[in-house]
Amino acid sequence: MADKRKSVTARLAELGVALPPCPAPLGAYVPTVRDGGLIYTSGMLPMADGVLTLTGPVGPGGHPAERGAEAARLCALNALAAIAAELGGVEGLERVARVIQVTGHVLSAPGFADQPQVLNGASDFLFQVFGERGRHTRMALGAAALPRGASVELAVVVRVEP
Amino acid sequence: MADKRKSVTARLAELGVALPPCPAPLGAYVPTVRDGGLIYTSGMLPMADGVLTLTGPVGPGGHPAERGAEAARLCALNALAAIAAELGGVEGLERVARVIQVTGHVLSAPGFADQPQVLNGASDFLFQVFGERGRHTRMALGAAALPRGASVELAVVVRVEP
Amino acid sequence: MADKRKSVTARLAELGVALPPCPAPLGAYVPTVRDGGLIYTSGMLPMADGVLTLTGPVGPGGHPAERGAEAARLCALNALAAIAAELGGVEGLERVARVIQVTGHVLSAPGFADQPQVLNGASDFLFQVFGERGRHTRMALGAAALPRGASVELAVVVRVEP
Repeated sequence: MADKRKSVTARLAELGVALPPCPAPLGAYVPTVRDGGLIYTSGMLPMADGVLTLTGPVGPGGHPAERGAEAARLCALNALAAIAAELGGVEGLERVARVIQVTGHVLSAPGFADQPQVLNGASDFLFQVFGERGRHTRMALGAAALPRGASVELAVVVRVEP
Repeated sequence: MADKRKSVTARLAELGVALPPCPAPLGAYVPTVRDGGLIYTSGMLPMADGVLTLTGPVGPGGHPAERGAEAARLCALNALAAIAAELGGVEGLERVARVIQVTGHVLSAPGFADQPQVLNGASDFLFQVFGERGRHTRMALGAAALPRGASVELAVVVRVEP
Repeated sequence: MADKRKSVTARLAELGVALPPCPAPLGAYVPTVRDGGLIYTSGMLPMADGVLTLTGPVGPGGHPAERGAEAARLCALNALAAIAAELGGVEGLERVARVIQVTGHVLSAPGFADQPQVLNGASDFLFQVFGERGRHTRMALGAAALPRGASVELAVVVRVEP
């Protein structure tokens, strides 16, 4: 059970996670928009240092769900990096009052139906980082195709305190 | 034409619909998040008593669109159950001021392009239950894969009165 | 670089674009819902005069990405038409304070992974029309099936001034 009073920064440190730079968009859009107290992210891919860490379908003949879950976690980390950039740095993440919505698409091999297991990689991570504030709604979907062949794409909406 | 002054509870009774319990999440997320006056639901599947009532693709070689529409209606019913749970019970649904957004994904056989007919099962039901307040925006999509092989997945955003 | 002070109407005229009528829904839903200061659109298809201008997959063996981008631009134009109708006419578009979110699905041939290029047709257009206010978050996805076989489907959320 996560300690509600522990800071997000402390939790990231405990997890051994360093926040990467805000991911660069692949087109004519921006990583985040803040509207009132909500921050919307663009679709995040499992990129590290500008390179996709996992491409191709998850499921029979493709990657095991466990590897998909690692990619989903990385997508969520990139979403946090984008939100932090919107809020002026990693300390800004302390202002996240609630993760509202996660939409996750898993590039799926024919017959693969465990998108929830893959996306738990992102959901568990958000809970580890934010505690109860990280408990979100989720839509888990299977995709036939994703940008650059990424195995997972994930977008997030969060509420921030003023 | 639905009577605007008729209660949601009365309409559900007229339709012969009993609200099921709030559906259990398939992963590390929650069925609903309330943020200000909005309630977001997670992706709902056509489950009854914990069992999927329809799996596999809709369209040529799969289920007819009419069966898909029944599944979409059940997804919408589960969304109402989740919203009611968020609001303390079925009477809470009287506070729904507007259904804002419905996002529906239909597991589609190759060549199937009538996702709108399938999702009308959900849209018509929401109009029957809420009247004009049930008129929503919708995104109708075809999916290559959905969790547990469900034929339909549907998420809803509603505005509630204080 | 777009001039922030130029009116939306003037920019549409410069682009040689006439706003079409609000697109008719394909089912039991409405083109837009206004909730507070946000307008949500339904999924828009590349329709002109009630006819789809592009159907079938984009990518190897299908349409080139450039044609998909034209279709995405048309989807965005239809979204603007729907938003204008919600706001009482084309002049209403001057009240758009920010394009918040674009969700785009591209009907994708096997092996096609450049959904971002396709959706740039919509994103670039929104920037041309709204300038900095048009810079949005985006989710770019590949679809296995879309309503009526449309090559692109796109939904938009915008903030409007009172």
